[in-house]
Amino acid sequence: MRLLFLGDVVGRPGREAVTGHLPGLRDRWALDCVIINGENAAGGFGITEAICEDLFAAGVDAITLGNHAFDQREALVFIEREHRLVRPATFPSGTPGRGATMVETARGARVLVVNAMGRIFMDAMDCPFTRVEEALADCPLGYGADAVIVDFHAEATSEKQAMGHFCDGRASLVVGTHTHVPTADYRVLPGGTAYISDLGMCGDYDSVLGMGKDEPLRRFLQKTPGSRLEAAQGEGALAGLAVETDDATGLATRCAALRLGPHLPPALPDFWD
Amino acid sequence: MRLLFLGDVVGRPGREAVTGHLPGLRDRWALDCVIINGENAAGGFGITEAICEDLFAAGVDAITLGNHAFDQREALVFIEREHRLVRPATFPSGTPGRGATMVETARGARVLVVNAMGRIFMDAMDCPFTRVEEALADCPLGYGADAVIVDFHAEATSEKQAMGHFCDGRASLVVGTHTHVPTADYRVLPGGTAYISDLGMCGDYDSVLGMGKDEPLRRFLQKTPGSRLEAAQGEGALAGLAVETDDATGLATRCAALRLGPHLPPALPDFWD
Amino acid sequence: MRLLFLGDVVGRPGREAVTGHLPGLRDRWALDCVIINGENAAGGFGITEAICEDLFAAGVDAITLGNHAFDQREALVFIEREHRLVRPATFPSGTPGRGATMVETARGARVLVVNAMGRIFMDAMDCPFTRVEEALADCPLGYGADAVIVDFHAEATSEKQAMGHFCDGRASLVVGTHTHVPTADYRVLPGGTAYISDLGMCGDYDSVLGMGKDEPLRRFLQKTPGSRLEAAQGEGALAGLAVETDDATGLATRCAALRLGPHLPPALPDFWD
Amino acid sequence: MRLLFLGDVVGRPGREAVTGHLPGLRDRWALDCVIINGENAAGGFGITEAICEDLFAAGVDAITLGNHAFDQREALVFIEREHRLVRPATFPSGTPGRGATMVETARGARVLVVNAMGRIFMDAMDCPFTRVEEALADCPLGYGADAVIVDFHAEATSEKQAMGHFCDGRASLVVGTHTHVPTADYRVLPGGTAYISDLGMCGDYDSVLGMGKDEPLRRFLQKTPGSRLEAAQGEGALAGLAVETDDATGLATRCAALRLGPHLPPALPDFWD
Ligand SMILES: [Fe+2]
Ligand SMILES: [Fe+2]
Ligand SMILES: [Fe+2]
Ligand SMILES: [Fe+2]
Ligand SMILES: [Fe+2]
Ligand SMILES: [Fe+2]
Ligand SMILES: [Fe+2]
Ligand SMILES: [Fe+2]
Repeated sequence: MRLLFLGDVVGRPGREAVTGHLPGLRDRWALDCVIINGENAAGGFGITEAICEDLFAAGVDAITLGNHAFDQREALVFIEREHRLVRPATFPSGTPGRGATMVETARGARVLVVNAMGRIFMDAMDCPFTRVEEALADCPLGYGADAVIVDFHAEATSEKQAMGHFCDGRASLVVGTHTHVPTADYRVLPGGTAYISDLGMCGDYDSVLGMGKDEPLRRFLQKTPGSRLEAAQGEGALAGLAVETDDATGLATRCAALRLGPHLPPALPDFWD
Repeated sequence: MRLLFLGDVVGRPGREAVTGHLPGLRDRWALDCVIINGENAAGGFGITEAICEDLFAAGVDAITLGNHAFDQREALVFIEREHRLVRPATFPSGTPGRGATMVETARGARVLVVNAMGRIFMDAMDCPFTRVEEALADCPLGYGADAVIVDFHAEATSEKQAMGHFCDGRASLVVGTHTHVPTADYRVLPGGTAYISDLGMCGDYDSVLGMGKDEPLRRFLQKTPGSRLEAAQGEGALAGLAVETDDATGLATRCAALRLGPHLPPALPDFWD
Repeated sequence: MRLLFLGDVVGRPGREAVTGHLPGLRDRWALDCVIINGENAAGGFGITEAICEDLFAAGVDAITLGNHAFDQREALVFIEREHRLVRPATFPSGTPGRGATMVETARGARVLVVNAMGRIFMDAMDCPFTRVEEALADCPLGYGADAVIVDFHAEATSEKQAMGHFCDGRASLVVGTHTHVPTADYRVLPGGTAYISDLGMCGDYDSVLGMGKDEPLRRFLQKTPGSRLEAAQGEGALAGLAVETDDATGLATRCAALRLGPHLPPALPDFWD
Repeated sequence: MRLLFLGDVVGRPGREAVTGHLPGLRDRWALDCVIINGENAAGGFGITEAICEDLFAAGVDAITLGNHAFDQREALVFIEREHRLVRPATFPSGTPGRGATMVETARGARVLVVNAMGRIFMDAMDCPFTRVEEALADCPLGYGADAVIVDFHAEATSEKQAMGHFCDGRASLVVGTHTHVPTADYRVLPGGTAYISDLGMCGDYDSVLGMGKDEPLRRFLQKTPGSRLEAAQGEGALAGLAVETDDATGLATRCAALRLGPHLPPALPDFWD
């Protein structure tokens, strides 16, 4: 199976990079399943139902979230009816929405998408290792699902790498999100799970994390309240990871970075052309 | 000028990757100056004088540090006499050692190396923006130095990107260290400063941050005290950034990742061969 | 019922304050149940089986713990057989020991003692509100137990006050521990639960949190590694809360601070003499 | 000299407790100098010029601040002309206002009031020990000032106790603020400095830190965005510390808690009546 996971979409530049590039890429590479993290899609803070629709229309199969999941309050409502939208499974029980969803691909394969949030340097929620363990147990790779994908939205590289090893052999792919910077440590782990510490973001990289750079810099220097953070407005770039899985086992056979657009070292998977 | 900055050396695998590869690379590319972060060189925790000597002998011109600077207590002593060893300038005044040093290259150029530590998610020390500002003011690029290099040892990508923009046009190169994962966001910023959020580490990448992966994973799962963290013992890889500067201005003209060894997507600068 | 809860015992001065004063107080006030937090009893770090025995011999009925629960490794073993020793219920499932225990008093009353750890500014574990809710549901006040006591070991006053309100009417007593400073906000909440944000410690108050003050102060000033933290060695004081409950409802009718020994404003409950 | 320092004023209940009680207390005890922390005076968030005027009119001589100093933006402006308003000296240089001020009492004594913020579990600013040292050196007790008062606005009890010992013998009084819970550890330290870890707040104690308790509790349970935090609206109580100093040395001779109003164990200094 051919999978693509794109990092946190930030504001209009991120959305335009997705809607501009994704339809062509999906077609060119005959992708089976495309996932994206959408927690910053609405101006940097959360996501709306209209934006979800735009992303689905551009070729996205499922959207994951993170600490900004509910910054737009409407997400607390429409997430109940939108089963392709997943919020971290580590939220308290009773939180609207779901922590995992099953995508059925055009060719009939079942892809389990799990979302969890880290606890190091983040607001503490439920244990991500426990919640991911439960999701993997409910729907084991090769039995309940043809592919299993985990978006681990976390800050600390130690916790992310630990999650990769924890899932190795039991998931097709573990991606880190949240730092908005693509890492160059993607690989297939010994047990067959593709892994990257962070996908990076889809957005304007001439920025601080996709937001206009003046106000963040001012805050570091001055420590007094100032203006609101706003998404940067330059052209956005795509960042993500392309993964091929073995249809028999669901495990990854190879993976490669996708980095496409201004201010990023370009990278395209070369194994599908 | 041709510069190479290598990320945090972790334990024996990291040191052997440096001593094994660096002499050849230095020669092959006719490097003018090589810097490395050495805060984890001694088994993951700090650095000893003997290890410093080995790194210098392998072709390193200066060594920077971070939060683990003084894990080996002897560093509190020998740093006073070893002017090529730099600890973060953000330590309190009175701390042994120095926060910046000047390297004179074989061809007679002066390279200022500055080290600072971030404050987001780290033990709070002095303001890194203030301390870096002072170092840049003391020795301006093009006047006091032919190249200026800042190692910003920090956790949060926001703080690192802010530091990059803060120095843009005033430094040849700003590198992030500390997360032990190489990022793929290196570029020359608009003002002429080469930047990367994190160099990654020189060490065994089949690990958690260069340390054997069992104990870190156990700690995430069990939260009870266990055994000590020990450096992983597989073959190490090198990770760093290669930068070319303009001799007239000291600003960067191009940069590229170096990733060499097991478990990392390979990358070599192509502009010097 | 007459209850006394004493704060974190720190080192020898704390233990001697307990063994010196508690037998007399227990007798003088005809106490039904005495609980103490023992996480720092062994030189500031954890607890041993021998120390547990000494505390029980001095008139303690149950011992709670906190983030230092297992600093002495032997506690991972003997906690399994010592049912009067309770560690936070927020540890991952599978952790040795228990998060709640039932004390039977000499007069045949059943006292449920629950221990939980906060998550603000502490290593993240399970949600304390969820774990306490479960304990209260398993053994409701007035049905399963004649008194219910919660030790909420937490840093942030917001989280502690929230826990007090959360339990109000369902517990006899909610005490905060961990900061080692007694607070003067004890009261019976509207629903009948006695509450104090922090009991303070049993230990030498001419110190930093019960530890000799030179090294903590040096660390704040110098940020370099130094000597080990050691418990201060002056005479210890007792700090805790005395509570009377209604035998019919198990709810608190009145409460008062106990502060006895050097360096603390003295306070003794006046309603039992 | 007779000094009174009152803790963080929270919203209308806090202000009314001050304006209702302070004029009578000032008169009854012939207070020489009254200081109050005003960082939460405006509905819990910051302070306005009008509120400052009300507090001064009620008998306050100087107002200190903290992390909420500039939540009301107008404070960035009027603090420049209001020399009786002090913000933490640990803000970056260039921040509007001042970190210390001199109060001249009716009887002609000079009282230096210094404000600093801690760094443990708080947004990192300059080193409080360094900034307080500078203030003490600029204006030594007994030479530059007849009394020296330090408001250390901090979260961690370790940092607060360390600051107390750091200033012992060099200040008349060190008070902690920020946690909004009064501590019962006030005393005169060996060198003659009166100390309390936290004054508590002036506000409605049937609350979470002075704010209505439903929303904070909901946030702990649900982790989703909800309504704004609003100051609780019940009757407020006063909390603070009364200190007497020796006119010859400026050091403290005795101190006692002031706790006056609903939901707090009552406490009044007995040495002035
Ligand atoms: Fe994000
Ligand atoms: Fe995020
Ligand atoms: Fe490191
Ligand atoms: Fe580090
Ligand atoms: Fe403790
Ligand atoms: Fe503790
Ligand atoms: Fe406050
Ligand atoms: Fe505060």
